[in-house]
Parts: sequence; structure tokens; C-alpha cells
Amino acid sequence: MAEKNVELIDLLKEYIAEGNLELLSLTLFHLHPADIADIFDQLDEDDLEKIFQLLDNEKAAYVLEQMDIHTQLYLFKRLSPDRVRELLDFMSYDDTADLLGELSEEEAKDFLAIMEQEEAAEVKDLLDYAEDSAGGIMTTEYVTVRMDITAEEAIRELRRIAPEAETIYYVYVVNEKEELVGVLSLRELIVAKPQALIQDIMRTNVISVDVATDQEEVARIVAKYDLLAVPVVDQEHRLVGIVTVDDIIDVIEEETTEDIYKLMGATEAFEERMPFLPGLTASVRARLPWLLITLLGGVLSGSIVRTFSDAINSIVALAYFMPLLAGMGGNVGTQSSTIVVRGLATGQISSSELLRNIMREGLIGSIIGLVVGLVVAGVAVLWQGMPILGFIVGVAMWANAMTAAIIGALVPLVFKKIGVDPAVASAPFISTTIDITGLTIYFSLVTLLISYLI
Amino acid sequence: MAEKNVELIDLLKEYIAEGNLELLSLTLFHLHPADIADIFDQLDEDDLEKIFQLLDNEKAAYVLEQMDIHTQLYLFKRLSPDRVRELLDFMSYDDTADLLGELSEEEAKDFLAIMEQEEAAEVKDLLDYAEDSAGGIMTTEYVTVRMDITAEEAIRELRRIAPEAETIYYVYVVNEKEELVGVLSLRELIVAKPQALIQDIMRTNVISVDVATDQEEVARIVAKYDLLAVPVVDQEHRLVGIVTVDDIIDVIEEETTEDIYKLMGATEAFEERMPFLPGLTASVRARLPWLLITLLGGVLSGSIVRTFSDAINSIVALAYFMPLLAGMGGNVGTQSSTIVVRGLATGQISSSELLRNIMREGLIGSIIGLVVGLVVAGVAVLWQGMPILGFIVGVAMWANAMTAAIIGALVPLVFKKIGVDPAVASAPFISTTIDITGLTIYFSLVTLLISYLI
Repeated sequence: MAEKNVELIDLLKEYIAEGNLELLSLTLFHLHPADIADIFDQLDEDDLEKIFQLLDNEKAAYVLEQMDIHTQLYLFKRLSPDRVRELLDFMSYDDTADLLGELSEEEAKDFLAIMEQEEAAEVKDLLDYAEDSAGGIMTTEYVTVRMDITAEEAIRELRRIAPEAETIYYVYVVNEKEELVGVLSLRELIVAKPQALIQDIMRTNVISVDVATDQEEVARIVAKYDLLAVPVVDQEHRLVGIVTVDDIIDVIEEETTEDIYKLMGATEAFEERMPFLPGLTASVRARLPWLLITLLGGVLSGSIVRTFSDAINSIVALAYFMPLLAGMGGNVGTQSSTIVVRGLATGQISSSELLRNIMREGLIGSIIGLVVGLVVAGVAVLWQGMPILGFIVGVAMWANAMTAAIIGALVPLVFKKIGVDPAVASAPFISTTIDITGLTIYFSLVTLLISYLI
Repeated sequence: MAEKNVELIDLLKEYIAEGNLELLSLTLFHLHPADIADIFDQLDEDDLEKIFQLLDNEKAAYVLEQMDIHTQLYLFKRLSPDRVRELLDFMSYDDTADLLGELSEEEAKDFLAIMEQEEAAEVKDLLDYAEDSAGGIMTTEYVTVRMDITAEEAIRELRRIAPEAETIYYVYVVNEKEELVGVLSLRELIVAKPQALIQDIMRTNVISVDVATDQEEVARIVAKYDLLAVPVVDQEHRLVGIVTVDDIIDVIEEETTEDIYKLMGATEAFEERMPFLPGLTASVRARLPWLLITLLGGVLSGSIVRTFSDAINSIVALAYFMPLLAGMGGNVGTQSSTIVVRGLATGQISSSELLRNIMREGLIGSIIGLVVGLVVAGVAVLWQGMPILGFIVGVAMWANAMTAAIIGALVPLVFKKIGVDPAVASAPFISTTIDITGLTIYFSLVTLLISYLI
């Protein structure tokens, strides 16, 4: 796909250079909005503006919805107020709200002023919800019917509303207070007898989410119940919106990326979605904090080594095994913490089974430690011809791997228990902690057995 | 949700103990199949068998589809052939194929023999495709129409087939050779004039995937074009199946988990999806290989330290900074590799922009290195009162962070270029490599400036 786009971009650029608007329009006409959006995100700004003018309003709106938010903003700020109004008319409310959410309050107001009054009001409501809540990702373009009409009438109503609605595959049933009382899939509606009353055929145990529900939880519910859309209700159980499955896929991708970055010790600056990566400053700002914290840990590790400097002074060979011990501990611990963090995210691990999970990881760590410890002990004996050094290094490696696995599992589980995001138990944090415990174990063994060493 | 389930499980267990089948049935009747599946996955086996008998075939089949594959297998092996036939009758072909795929060939044959002939043939076809290809995740329960009928006739046909189909929200148009020539969404069909011919209203540029397409690519296409299902065609462009969006969500979750585990240096043994984590042996087998490779790296690091043992012998303080240097390098490098691996997976980073991405990471690494290097140099001077040691440690830290970021970005990009899975550039691999380069930089500086140190 990427290669195909590169070719198309070159072709489109050629057409632009030649001023061949006819071929340009023809090419765009045959492309899917998602493909056009992909290409537009990669064009330089002058070309982008020129080509964008060739799209009719309906297609342009679909293309905009698929485009990176920054490219959207760039275009919107350069279009005439007339064009903006026409485009916003075709865009869905949730995408419009996402766009305006990126603007300053002043700028957003200007855009709202351009829009049709009714639409502006709907979008303004959406803007009030937290960005990562059900309210922040829902749209208000859903289909509702009253329960006292027939299936046939409902389908007729559906035909009428279809062009405005985000999905027509669920029809929501509300009472006179706008409370959500039932749901029917279009499938059930189509199969039902034409004269059947909605109230007799609707499902009444509707799966819905609250407007304040976190988007990750919304995604979990949609995935679990295999829904195409989930209705969103307010505190009074009034229907206020729906979240569709295509937005849920975006949420899943966004949340996973966030978790992965957190695991590596990068913070919020990465959270924003991006076709371009965050700028240099944002990157450094996101990555430095955890690194500085691990710096403290590194200094602590250093002072442990310093405490045992007499031992190193007598047997410099002790220093050879420091990178090996620290590295292995960090790796085992990071594996454990990653497995636990991911398990908590997907629901495979429950924080209520704290002890069982920690024992499990501890056991795995001690088996791994045994294998690795034996190998390292062998290396130590071969290198230095000192069996006692081999014994110390081997035992330290075994104890270190076990401790590392336990710490790796313990930290995210405890974080989860006390309400901290388990992904904060990032690799830098875990491996620095394990450097400290690992060196302590190693040099404690050395101190215990120093008389046999010298 | 988890807490709610715990309560429900206790309640169900109470009912079982009391032998209160009536209340048991009533509770199950009101629960969603996905919730029942969640609870069943956590019941002990005796209770599971007892309660399962209370479900009618249709609901039991839906519950089975949502259950962990191992629990499914457990139940199927214990049910009577009659019940098995009835249940398989209600299950969709793709779920049945997934189930039989877990069995030995002999066992699968037994199950196929029980099934109705036509169904058995369909499932057998599905079993032939690779598990992680479009063919392996598709189902054959889709709706097709000929292009010479009207919209009204198509809807009538849809009503007839609806109970058998996995989704009726897309109607696929095939010609006499069964080739896919068009598609219509139910939405378009409902809105169309009843007398309009399918061939006049269908979309002809159908987005489809080949039966051998990797499931990750299928997921990317469904996500990109916001589809509810994507048709699967064979080499002759004949329609052979569809993949629905609910299965795509499972694929995304599965592939992400796989990537995350790979980043941490765990191999295939984890790939299997699981409500229970893989067994101890599988875990150790998955995690040990990379650890043993890093062990080699660790030994190499050790021999670098050994080469410079004279320097350490003269100034033991040199050893204090080893954990700090190695740890920071590992962390910076792992951050870079993670960002690149994830960027490649989501398409935000293209391997064709090799140099640009590497320079970007190198720049970020050198900024981070500058900050961290200054802090560490300060610490070194304070600890040892030796400005020259501070200088060495600071410069080494800076060079180490920059090298680490470059290696972290370079390795996955090069892997991608030469066709190796970039996620193989795992944290253990990267951080071990960086241990080696970091120590080399550090001790080279030391050697250069040793005369000022002693």
C-alpha cells in the first residue's frame, strides 16, 4: 500500500506541475476517501491546498474525516468561510467536535458561528465532554423510534433518516422522557413481521455506557459483546449518543500505543495521535523524566559498588560480572512486568489474585535463574579458575533472576491495587530497581564468602 | 464487571450446591452469552458441566463461541454426540473450524462425521487455510445476490437468509462464475428505490482481500476503510468468505499482545490466546532463548571490563559508574527501538525513510545524553573530587545515550528492510548490544585520559 501511494503521489505531483486539472480530478474521483487522506497527509502544503480545491464537498468532507487532525486544521484555517460551512455540513458531529477541540476557544467560536445553528449546538454539546470519555468519542447522529409504531413504520422512518445517521444498523427505542428503553438491530427489524409493534419485538436489556465512561472501558464492552455501536446515556438514563465500532478500533490502537510507550518510560507527550511523530522537544520532554529518576537509581547502584570497593580492589574479577548480573536481572524483570501489565490490560490477569501471580512469576524466574546461573558459574570458573567465584556468581544470578521476576510482577499488581496505572511500572523503573537489588545480593554474597576468595 | 462476576459465580455455586435448578436456569436466561462465557471460563469443571446442561442449544452455542477455546474443547469432549451435533448446528463455521483446528486430525474427523454433511464440508474447507490468514479467520456465512434482481427482491432474499448469515449488513454481488463484482450495504439497499436493479446501484470498486492475506493486513484494511466486514476472494477472484469486524478486533488484540511480548524478548510460545496464561514450561521456553543470547552479550561485556582491569585496579571508582552507564544506555536504546517498532506496526514510520528516522533518534539521544551527562558529571565530581573523572563519565554518558538511540532505531529499521520482523529487536537484544558499546566508549575514554587520572 505504501509503495502504491508513493507512486500515486508522484503521479499527482506531475499532474500538478503540468497543471493538468482534468487528470487530477479523474484520479481523485476513482480513489477511496481513506486513500486520498493517506496521500494528502504526505503532500507538501502548497500542493495540498491546490488539490483539495478539486474535491466536491461531500467527498472532501469524508477525506477530511480520515485525515490527520493537524492536516485538517491546516486546511480549515485556509479555506473560505463558505467552503468551511459546506464541508462541516457533511462531516459528522463527532469529527467536527474533535477538530474544534484542537483549536483555541476563540477560534472554535469563530467556526461555530459559521455553522448552521442546530449543528453548532450539537457540536458544542459534544465539546463539553472529556476527550477520552464515551461522551468525547460519541456522535449524536443515531436513529430513535417510539415503541408504539410497527416494524414497517420503523423501516420507513429509517429510510428517511438514513442519510443523516452515522449508523442505521441499530434502532434505539426511547420513551417520552428520552430514556433508553430498548434496542433493535436492523437485522431483527428486517426479519420481523411488518405489523409487529416495536415494543413487542425490541430487546429491553440494552447494553449501554455512561457518558463519563472511560473510552478504554467502552472499547472493552464493544469488543466483549461484539457490538457495531453502543448507546451512550446520561445520569438520567436518557440517550445522548452512540459510539460506533470504527471509532472503537481507533481507540484500541491509541490506547495500546500509549501503554507500549508507558512501558518504555515515556510520558503523556506521546499520547497525542500522530501521522508525524511528536516533535523533538516533545520527545525529549516525554522521555527524560523517567530517565532522570533512573539516574537516581543508577547513583544508588554506584554507591553500593562504592561500599564494596575494598572487595573489588582485592579481586578485580568481581567487576567483570556486574554488567552480566545487572543486564540479566533487568531483562527477566522487564519480561515479567510486561506480561503482567499486558495481562491486566486485556483482563487475563486479575489484581485480586496478587499472591498467585507473584508466586507464578517467582517460580518462572527461579527456573530461568537456575539455567542462567549454571551457565554463568561455568563461565566464571573457566575465566578465573576459582570455583568459589563461580559459586558466588551462579547463586547471585539465580537469586537475582528470581527477585527480578517477583519485583517485575509485584510492582504493576500493587500499582493496580492502589489505583495507579500499572503501565507506570515501566522498563526503566523496573530495571533500575533490579540493578540495586541485584548488586546488593551479589556483594552480600561476596562479603559473606570473602575469606574464601582472597 | 469482574466484581459483578465474582458475585454471580458465588450465587451460581450456591444454587448448584442447593440443587436449585430453577433459579439457576432463570439466572442464566437473563444473562448475555458473553457474560455467561466469562463466568464459565472461571468455574471448576464439575460445576461447568452441570450448569452447561441447563442451556438450550441456541444460547449454548453462542456461549461456546465466546468461551476460551480450551474450555470449549473440555466441554465438547464430554458431551453426547447428539448434543454436539445440535450445538455445532448453531455455531458459525469459523468458530467451529477454530475449535476443530485445536484437535488432532483423528478427533477432528470424528467431529466432522457427527455434523451434517453440507456443514462438515464447509468447515473442512476452512480448516485448510493458514490460521493467521484471511482464510483462517473468515466465515462462509455471507449473503450474495445476482445483479439482475431488484432492490426489493434483494431485501426479500435477505429476510430469507438472515438467520443463517454472520452479517446481513453487506450484500455481495457475484456473477455466474461466482466472481465478486459488486457490493451493497444494507443501508444503501434500504434507501434505494424498490424497483432499482442491483447492477445499477451496486458499488463496483469493492475492497476485498485475498484468501492468503495475513490477518494483520486484513485488520489494517478493515480499520482504514471503516468496514463492518471485508470480502475474501480466491486466486480467480471468486468470493469464498467474509471477515467481520468483531473478529478483526480480536485479531488486533492478539497481534498487539504478540508484538509487546516480542519486544520483551519472549517467543512464539506466547502467541496462543489465553484466558489462562501459558503454563510454566511454555513460559520458560518462550523467555529463555533471548536471555541466553543476551548472556553471551553479558560475557562479552565482562571481557571488555576484564581488558581494562588494570585501569579499574588503579582507580576503583571507575567501577562505580558502570551500572549507571549501562542502565541509562539500555533505557534510552529500548525507548528508541520501541518507538520505531510501534511506529512501523501502525504505519507512522516507514522503513524507506531510514536515514531520517535514525538521525531523528540520534538527535533526541544526544539531547537526552547532554542533560544526563551533565548531571552524572556533577555527581562524579562531588563523589570523587576528580574533575577529570567527571569529564570522562559525562562525555561517556552523552556518547552512550546517542549511540544507544541510534542503535535502537537502526536495528528494527534494518530488520524491516531485510524482511525480518522488527519486533525481534527486543529490549534484551538492544540493551545487551548497548552494554557492549557503552562500556567500550567508557573505557576507551579512560585509556585515552588515564595519565590525567592517576
